[in-house]
Amino acid sequence: MKRSEIEAAYREIQEQFSSSLEALDGDSQLRVDEWDRDDGGGGVTRIITGPGHIEKAAVNFSAVFGPTPTGLSESVAAGSSEFYATGVSIIVHPRNPNAPTFHANIRYFETDNGDRWFGGGADLTPYYLFEEDATRFHEVLKATCDSHQVSDYRTWKSACDRYFYLPHRGEARGIGGLFFDHLTADLEEVWDFQKELGSSLSMSYVPILERRVGIMYGEEETRWHEIRRGRYAEFNLVWDRGTRFGLETGGRVESILASLPPRASWEYMHEPGPGTRERALLDMVRAGPRDWV
Amino acid sequence: MKRSEIEAAYREIQEQFSSSLEALDGDSQLRVDEWDRDDGGGGVTRIITGPGHIEKAAVNFSAVFGPTPTGLSESVAAGSSEFYATGVSIIVHPRNPNAPTFHANIRYFETDNGDRWFGGGADLTPYYLFEEDATRFHEVLKATCDSHQVSDYRTWKSACDRYFYLPHRGEARGIGGLFFDHLTADLEEVWDFQKELGSSLSMSYVPILERRVGIMYGEEETRWHEIRRGRYAEFNLVWDRGTRFGLETGGRVESILASLPPRASWEYMHEPGPGTRERALLDMVRAGPRDWV
Repeated sequence: MKRSEIEAAYREIQEQFSSSLEALDGDSQLRVDEWDRDDGGGGVTRIITGPGHIEKAAVNFSAVFGPTPTGLSESVAAGSSEFYATGVSIIVHPRNPNAPTFHANIRYFETDNGDRWFGGGADLTPYYLFEEDATRFHEVLKATCDSHQVSDYRTWKSACDRYFYLPHRGEARGIGGLFFDHLTADLEEVWDFQKELGSSLSMSYVPILERRVGIMYGEEETRWHEIRRGRYAEFNLVWDRGTRFGLETGGRVESILASLPPRASWEYMHEPGPGTRERALLDMVRAGPRDWV
Repeated sequence: MKRSEIEAAYREIQEQFSSSLEALDGDSQLRVDEWDRDDGGGGVTRIITGPGHIEKAAVNFSAVFGPTPTGLSESVAAGSSEFYATGVSIIVHPRNPNAPTFHANIRYFETDNGDRWFGGGADLTPYYLFEEDATRFHEVLKATCDSHQVSDYRTWKSACDRYFYLPHRGEARGIGGLFFDHLTADLEEVWDFQKELGSSLSMSYVPILERRVGIMYGEEETRWHEIRRGRYAEFNLVWDRGTRFGLETGGRVESILASLPPRASWEYMHEPGPGTRERALLDMVRAGPRDWV
């Protein structure tokens, strides 16, 4: 596959996912920003906000290239002087605390010394636990993996559990999903897998959203929602490698931080009472990884 | 000065500052947590919250000791195997967007290879700019510095401007103040200065708070307040060395993150209109350091 083919498929994945969200939420506003990167390339950021079910969603496409930034030349792109990277990243923050936050990313990378690889993943962060949602989400991801030789649900599920973890809290971010990176072998097969993963993302998430956005909730649920969104902000700002790398190397701040929740709060020593739905969520994220399928 | 003397003075500074806040806000609730550190020492965290003027304030005292953590032994405490550290840290997040956030810290450090030093500072983060507040705040800090030989307002004011800066935004956190660290010489004189600084903290801030908490405000001001508090969270989680060090070395999370705003928000590409009070604040933090006295 060539760069142009990958970019075209990524743009289609962006378009498809964005449309599936817009269809769900008649009250939302869509904003589309095309932007250029000073050192080469650019992207398209699609933002959905409004008073409806989607409080804030960002669906980014980018294709950037140029001299390898220092952070990259010291790590994954060691020995290269030029790089090319393209990807789609998705974040959805629904308004209803019963609906989980969704995050996904697929990406392709090349260096001028001939390295090429794919990476990506998807994960779900509920604020209230519905076990059937967690199971369904993992089932879709597992089915996509199982239909390809190159993909490995068990390994990538474990990698996701390890990555989306807040060591300072001793908590998982959510119920995990898939995480894979630096896949350098069997690139044509990985590419086939990645295209299918991209087009299955809306199927993995939108039905969950549809089931949960109509549930009644009040101030207490929103308070809990915002506290947990504080944890989401902590993960992204303190631990997420992509966010930190972007901020430290002068990436486009508004695209990088589009993943942050529309609203978050921090209360000192908040602890939900025993037997509550909030307690059940907290116990789950502190209990360690779980097999959902 | 001995450890016991420093600890006693620090506890008094904590008590005094906390009382001055409680006196201001009749509706606030005070919570006092004494805690132990597994590896040695402990602290007292005083938290003020409630429906009144102080939305969230934390006044921490700690005195900790034990084997030098790896992060310290690789940096300021190189070559040591045991350390001792005591300090007071203060953060005040008022509810009214016209009242600035206040932060201050004073600390003393010792290692078993004979190094001893003081550090600290104070800084102010307005959400709307009142020049007289910025000037008054700096005047109090400058007067405290000017009454001691060892203190240097100009140098420490510049260090504060450099430290409380968000490179990814190209913005100062606020209007700065003082920042000094690793003062190893003339320790008795530095100690005299630090005691005076500690007892002048409430004078530097509480009169500003009193002037601003009665100003009327509405939803638009609160929206702006929360967006700017998002920047505060970004600074603390991404750039603040103390916060990152604490989180990475297993410090007491609830004390470390007590500095985070009670509520924050992130909106994509929010830009205040020309001629607004919000625009004036944004222009100020983007304009680079300013001499307030």
